[in-house]
Amino acid sequence: MTSATPGPDLTDPAPDVAKLDLTGSVADLTRALCDIPSVSGDEQAIADAVEAALREVAHLEVIRDGNCVVARTQLGRAERVVIAGHIDTVPIAGNLPTRTLDGVIHGRGTVDMKGGVAVALNLAAGVPEPTRDVTYVFYDCEEIEAVRNGLGRLSRERPELLQADFAVLGEPTSAVVEGGCQGTMRVEVTTTGTAAHSARSWMGSNAIHHAGAVLDVLNGYRARQIEVDGLVYREGLNAVGISGGIAGNVIPDRCSVLVNYRFAPDKSLAEAEAHLRELFGAWEVTVTDASPAARPGLNAPVAAHFVAAVGGTPGPKYGWTDVALFSGLGIPAVNFGPGNPSLAHKDDEHCPESDLTTCLDALRRYLTG
Amino acid sequence: MTSATPGPDLTDPAPDVAKLDLTGSVADLTRALCDIPSVSGDEQAIADAVEAALREVAHLEVIRDGNCVVARTQLGRAERVVIAGHIDTVPIAGNLPTRTLDGVIHGRGTVDMKGGVAVALNLAAGVPEPTRDVTYVFYDCEEIEAVRNGLGRLSRERPELLQADFAVLGEPTSAVVEGGCQGTMRVEVTTTGTAAHSARSWMGSNAIHHAGAVLDVLNGYRARQIEVDGLVYREGLNAVGISGGIAGNVIPDRCSVLVNYRFAPDKSLAEAEAHLRELFGAWEVTVTDASPAARPGLNAPVAAHFVAAVGGTPGPKYGWTDVALFSGLGIPAVNFGPGNPSLAHKDDEHCPESDLTTCLDALRRYLTG
Repeated sequence: MTSATPGPDLTDPAPDVAKLDLTGSVADLTRALCDIPSVSGDEQAIADAVEAALREVAHLEVIRDGNCVVARTQLGRAERVVIAGHIDTVPIAGNLPTRTLDGVIHGRGTVDMKGGVAVALNLAAGVPEPTRDVTYVFYDCEEIEAVRNGLGRLSRERPELLQADFAVLGEPTSAVVEGGCQGTMRVEVTTTGTAAHSARSWMGSNAIHHAGAVLDVLNGYRARQIEVDGLVYREGLNAVGISGGIAGNVIPDRCSVLVNYRFAPDKSLAEAEAHLRELFGAWEVTVTDASPAARPGLNAPVAAHFVAAVGGTPGPKYGWTDVALFSGLGIPAVNFGPGNPSLAHKDDEHCPESDLTTCLDALRRYLTG
Repeated sequence: MTSATPGPDLTDPAPDVAKLDLTGSVADLTRALCDIPSVSGDEQAIADAVEAALREVAHLEVIRDGNCVVARTQLGRAERVVIAGHIDTVPIAGNLPTRTLDGVIHGRGTVDMKGGVAVALNLAAGVPEPTRDVTYVFYDCEEIEAVRNGLGRLSRERPELLQADFAVLGEPTSAVVEGGCQGTMRVEVTTTGTAAHSARSWMGSNAIHHAGAVLDVLNGYRARQIEVDGLVYREGLNAVGISGGIAGNVIPDRCSVLVNYRFAPDKSLAEAEAHLRELFGAWEVTVTDASPAARPGLNAPVAAHFVAAVGGTPGPKYGWTDVALFSGLGIPAVNFGPGNPSLAHKDDEHCPESDLTTCLDALRRYLTG
């Protein structure tokens, strides 16, 4: 606790809010953000710090909503772009505080995605008169169940805050534009049998043994590569869980395989589900959760303009990201951020400082050109 | 609480001990025993009742050890036989108190194995001068982990109490002699792979998919029927559990299949293990628990005499029972008791009264002939 001032003020002193320097080095800012732990559900401290720093930027209007912070220019430009990033991380794995070694920052959040957040904050403070109006969105609870996602909450409760002609999500892409995102669907495929004592197994029918045929389908599946709007998406169909068994002396009468289908944006959720129901038609199939794919939309003029400004050759996004949410709102969106996406959620997550400056420079060109 | 007697006695009154009538109807005694709940670990009340009843039988020496009760004749006969039964049951499933319908007693314990205990208690009280000395053993904790088994404890700590030429275990056999018992071994067969994000599944190697080959082994296995000492045992090899999966978006790097092998008494534990290691040689194999088989031993004169006395055609015992413990002590042993063994542990467990009298009459013939 800080020392109390004398006088009649009996309220608790405000908690310390970490001070962020938005206008210095983007690498230092990345480290400062990472060093404020913010595992999903525990974002108040980092949201407070982001809000406090943005409120000192004269050219921005700042709105706080729960642990989301929105800051925007109001210059009356013909176009508006959203630059968004989530401020939560997956759990810390002994990989904080951050360290910098040979120009690479190591630690939880460096890739997913406080590097992208640092780039956005630096732009927010450092580009007072962008050629298109900008809405910066920093949101909570992206790494957990979709219903708690802060961007989703804003889209339902304050959709006016997200209105824009284009959106850039700073998810890690190794500083290359990645268009759209694949959809994801999980289904539980359940085999059934008849329970019996395992000393008289012939009186039962073993549901785990029957699951062999489900695994045969998965092992025989040839995942497709599909071109959508000029980008090639690589699909995947995988068991991500399996469970069965009642007791060590009982032939089990149920076994469930949890299957995750990652599908290209040429398919709707309904088409993805139909595909799975056809593959696993011999068994009970229950959809447990699903998120739609998003087409890359790079043919839209607003997106083409962005690609031209930042440079590089766009690629497909394999993982699911919140660009699908913007896509659902009718707003073309891309992923563009520092850090190798394969390192997201890894214990040895690390991001080159050069990715940070590449992204920062590219976005500054886009906003000032 | 019963009313206190006046005076200086400040100790707690002894808890009520149920009164058992050992010399009346064996069906009534079965119901009385079942109606004293005694799920494994909670056998004190039934052990107290059994002990109290046996202490009133003048021709028996009674020893209490924990919740085991041992009662024996000391007539100096040339042979001694153990007649044993466990007094615990698996959990009650709304199937107590007992009911009798059309000559069949329904309820927890009627089959496994208070019917057999009732027969033994009736013999203990009703056959004062058997032609062979008898040691009656009533023990706790048979239905749970082997280390807590009361008979096992006696064999380690008071082996002199179990010394005998032959043993009869009153486990349910539908009143037919069942010889020996199959062994049981559980092994965990584990496949491994490489974890990866399920959006980029080609960067990983899916351990659940690899488990398909383990299930192929199980599905392709032809369990043997093996004759040992004239009885045919039917083996079984079954998955009784399977588990794998880290998270809904991760390619799993481990999957474990728990396999239960029920094997005929022609094999030692080491031979059973070698067979499993050969079958599952491609993967990690860990033995999680095992109990040896017991040969039927019906060729031994002492066993042949028993079979001749009780009549009927002996069969094999598929399930594992404590005859294996006697077998390990070098004492030939058989299962012989009332009730259909397939109904053991079932919620609708029930035993015909005729099985009780068949067993009682057969054993009385054996002890008096």
